Amino acid sequence: MRRGRTVFFENAPKIAAAATVAGPKECAGAVGKFTDVALDDDMFGEDTFERAERKMLLTAVKKSLQKAGLAEKDVGAFLSGDLLNQIISASFTARETGLPFLGIYSACSTMSEGLLLGAMLTDGGYAANAVAATGSHFSSAERQYRYPLELGTTRPPQSQWTVTGAGSFVVRRGGEGPAVTCGTIGRVTDYGVSDVNNLGAAMAPAAADTLLAHFADTGRQPADYDLILTGDLGALGSRLLKDLLWEKGADIAATHVDCGEIVYNVAEDEFQGGSGAGCSAVVLGSYIYDLFCRGELGSVLFAATGALLSTVSSGQGESIPCISHAVAIEGRKRR
Amino acid sequence: MRRGRTVFFENAPKIAAAATVAGPKECAGAVGKFTDVALDDDMFGEDTFERAERKMLLTAVKKSLQKAGLAEKDVGAFLSGDLLNQIISASFTARETGLPFLGIYSACSTMSEGLLLGAMLTDGGYAANAVAATGSHFSSAERQYRYPLELGTTRPPQSQWTVTGAGSFVVRRGGEGPAVTCGTIGRVTDYGVSDVNNLGAAMAPAAADTLLAHFADTGRQPADYDLILTGDLGALGSRLLKDLLWEKGADIAATHVDCGEIVYNVAEDEFQGGSGAGCSAVVLGSYIYDLFCRGELGSVLFAATGALLSTVSSGQGESIPCISHAVAIEGRKRR
Repeated sequence: MRRGRTVFFENAPKIAAAATVAGPKECAGAVGKFTDVALDDDMFGEDTFERAERKMLLTAVKKSLQKAGLAEKDVGAFLSGDLLNQIISASFTARETGLPFLGIYSACSTMSEGLLLGAMLTDGGYAANAVAATGSHFSSAERQYRYPLELGTTRPPQSQWTVTGAGSFVVRRGGEGPAVTCGTIGRVTDYGVSDVNNLGAAMAPAAADTLLAHFADTGRQPADYDLILTGDLGALGSRLLKDLLWEKGADIAATHVDCGEIVYNVAEDEFQGGSGAGCSAVVLGSYIYDLFCRGELGSVLFAATGALLSTVSSGQGESIPCISHAVAIEGRKRR
Repeated sequence: MRRGRTVFFENAPKIAAAATVAGPKECAGAVGKFTDVALDDDMFGEDTFERAERKMLLTAVKKSLQKAGLAEKDVGAFLSGDLLNQIISASFTARETGLPFLGIYSACSTMSEGLLLGAMLTDGGYAANAVAATGSHFSSAERQYRYPLELGTTRPPQSQWTVTGAGSFVVRRGGEGPAVTCGTIGRVTDYGVSDVNNLGAAMAPAAADTLLAHFADTGRQPADYDLILTGDLGALGSRLLKDLLWEKGADIAATHVDCGEIVYNVAEDEFQGGSGAGCSAVVLGSYIYDLFCRGELGSVLFAATGALLSTVSSGQGESIPCISHAVAIEGRKRR
């Protein structure tokens, strides 16, 4: 069923399992206690950053299938993408597993696009089980999007730190687990921000646009959710989001948390917090999913945000188009 | 409904309209008579190749909506991706239109992934109308994947020529037009080919794998289709595909045509034929769609193929993972 940009899932597909892998810097923060695989070496025994990123994604996918008690043959669709050019982490993970693969790209909102599509495919009966997964690696992202690490380039205070980690979710029609009840497809917004070090400011309007559409389509209010969880707006982007929504009459201050804001509790040089496709995947798949499992969380509106720039588009003087997809996840809260 | 890797569409969503834009070299070939917009300048009035590529995609999308008699507000999902890093052609097209956007990436099989997802979303009732579109540009692809054109690098005889063009399809639940009746999700195959100039050889096993899965899942034979249309295997890749399938007992020689093989009839230096995400999009959306409209074609199995490499994966010594998604399109053939 559809209203506006929001799709509703009659069969409320369940998130049967979640699994995450997180890097050492990430494990020093909130997710360390909850992640399935905590790395003490961000190379994960590989010889390149890209291979380490891929291995994290593959590990998360395999772990999530294992936790859901599924074999690879039970999976109808593997929905994945990542930040690397031509989404090679996802494609090579698909190669290693042999899963039916639908490549997606939504930058750092890939996790919510994957969950949204996974819910549609399982709800509609096109797959009994779908796996939605993504990840990122600080060092592969830095050298692709910005500068080689060896240069030692100074980071400006509005920047964020790409999360080294991966998350994978098994979406299933029927069974147990928190349910995906509806979701809102994002559209691209662009307020003209062109500073590639200030993605939080660029993405905040996309999150605001999608959240407003979600509230309008569903008739729900911010207070109807225990938690409104954005992906990687960081501290500055989160403030902007709250302001933008407040101006439109939606006050999310009491229930909003941003994955990028909470992922690091070390204070080194990550400035505005975490970012990257892995940021929301790891936080949702570890700390938040654990709250669901323990009955401490009833409903979450998960709205990851993505900055759809490339080095070429920025180099050619374009501003940064951004998007946010939202999915409503509902568990059974113990009173 | 699902069997193996194949999904069946109960409501048989229709391809209500198709629109294409093609470059000058392409218009000298088979698609010239049928394309909606024939360019005499492959810059399309823009100052960069990337902007020209984007403008082609945007033009195709707008034209397809116009032909289907739809406004942008009628579109539930815009499914698009392209060959450029971070699929900027699709993202900026989404920005210009404001359509609800789900970014996808499947290299040169993006067109069949888009149609497959478009059929699932409309069949399942998650969108009344979906737009699936992709495109490519010879010059933007060359400088991103290979060498700057200014270098004048010699092309080896096994290479193909990236099509400059874009195609957009409106998939709709109900109404008129050829129907998408089922589709088979690809999985990644990799036979160890690492020559980035020989993508036809790399991709042929992926097409073979998906076609065999399709025949097994549906119980159909190659002869059950008027046409088995691959995307951009080119001359060499097509021969390999036919051989691979013949070895497995499936003889497609009588019904197989490859978009890359037929797109150029000029013999300059495109060697094995056309390639690129735009190749199958333009051929399917112009020449083939016209055959459907004139009742001269009953059923087509459209299986575009994609090489999921990046310059980084190749540079790090990886072979080329490939994929192919197939969709069965059925029209009303006049006897």
